[in-house]
Amino acid sequence: MKIAETPAPPYYAVIFTSIRSDNPNGYAETAARMIELANGQEGFLGVETAREEVGITVSYWRDEESIRKWKHHAEHTLAREKGRTAWYTSFKTRVARVERDYGFEVGG
Amino acid sequence: MKIAETPAPPYYAVIFTSIRSDNPNGYAETAARMIELANGQEGFLGVETAREEVGITVSYWRDEESIRKWKHHAEHTLAREKGRTAWYTSFKTRVARVERDYGFEVGG
Repeated sequence: MKIAETPAPPYYAVIFTSIRSDNPNGYAETAARMIELANGQEGFLGVETAREEVGITVSYWRDEESIRKWKHHAEHTLAREKGRTAWYTSFKTRVARVERDYGFEVGG
Repeated sequence: MKIAETPAPPYYAVIFTSIRSDNPNGYAETAARMIELANGQEGFLGVETAREEVGITVSYWRDEESIRKWKHHAEHTLAREKGRTAWYTSFKTRVARVERDYGFEVGG
């Protein structure tokens, strides 16, 4: 996991924040599979994820159309349903348009 | 740390992704202080943070003006400088306009 190498704005971010239940069944495998699957989607620009008390996964997309297609991807739809019924006690998804960005890298 | 209880969109998200150096001096104290300080700022709506390989902190703001004021807050400016010179090997800040959100809560 590195900082996502996104292009110049504008582009889109889907900020998914969640709190896990105590049901581990299949969660890790599906989470890894969703990142693998997202990587193959048209318009996917990168992803960053970390979990402590809350989990935060931010995926970056070229445009709204790419986000819409990913939302309706069959395997992703099944995973989201499992998220609701088993893996999370709560979550929030925010779709945002990245308007500017700036960064820093040692030696960069 | 809970999922931030943000109002109906639109509002703004500042997505700060970072990779830490091996210098711990003063980091945890300053990180906690920045969250405390942000909480007192005009237009601050909430924050979510987690760190594994990367750290992700998403703070939510009412408008661009609130973000601008927070960026220029003196103590925050000093902390960012320390971040560049000591605590991070790389980071990226993305300012995004949240256009829609949806969530789920067990029993909610």
